Amino acid sequence: MKKVDHIGIAVHSIEDVLPFYTETLPFTCLHIEEVDSEKIRVAFIDAGNVKIELLEPLNESSTITKFLEKRGQGIHHIAFGVEDIESRMKELKEKGIKMIQEQPKLGAGGAQVAFLHPKSGHGVLYELCEKKKER
Amino acid sequence: MKKVDHIGIAVHSIEDVLPFYTETLPFTCLHIEEVDSEKIRVAFIDAGNVKIELLEPLNESSTITKFLEKRGQGIHHIAFGVEDIESRMKELKEKGIKMIQEQPKLGAGGAQVAFLHPKSGHGVLYELCEKKKER
Repeated sequence: MKKVDHIGIAVHSIEDVLPFYTETLPFTCLHIEEVDSEKIRVAFIDAGNVKIELLEPLNESSTITKFLEKRGQGIHHIAFGVEDIESRMKELKEKGIKMIQEQPKLGAGGAQVAFLHPKSGHGVLYELCEKKKER
Repeated sequence: MKKVDHIGIAVHSIEDVLPFYTETLPFTCLHIEEVDSEKIRVAFIDAGNVKIELLEPLNESSTITKFLEKRGQGIHHIAFGVEDIESRMKELKEKGIKMIQEQPKLGAGGAQVAFLHPKSGHGVLYELCEKKKER
């Protein structure tokens, strides 16, 4: 648990929202990819010390579709960069934290990710995110 | 517009929520102060590359009280660290961004702060934050 890796923001359309970050604000889009496991398309924006991750749903079954219906566009989660995500999950569970999933899953950029239950995060959805190691 | 200075999180009680950050998570509380202009108490937590700012309302008139009634506990805003806040506000207004206030106001730690209207931020409440200069 070293630092905040990125802040995830739910949007209806990356195309519509990206110019706010790259033209109105002085940031750069690093890359855009689809994450099949979540049925989303994501755009990573370099905001200096952290990344901003725009999350656009690809279909109705995406959790981002449900979030947008309930809350509208806005901040979805905060991701902490970690090493050895399975040990971090075990430590958190020993401290009474409820995780949304029992095992890490594949996220954007090939990272291993796992979410804390927002009740454990006092209303904030926190993600643990272990980057794919460069080989 | 250099980087994300802090992420503001609305909570009912700093006392109840702080142990999640400093005991469950491995972070440190930097300081706690009251911000009279906003009728809030804030706790700044060092999360490595950014700060997490817990926002607790001091009375019913606080905007954080209204946020908690409407949305519950959760992420309230993202603050970008800037220099020369008045020039940054002028630039944003020239680009069509609606600001919540016309002039910066005094925030936590003696910083000058100003908020972009969340419609301009596509559902995200963004703050500009210019730290008090050390003299």
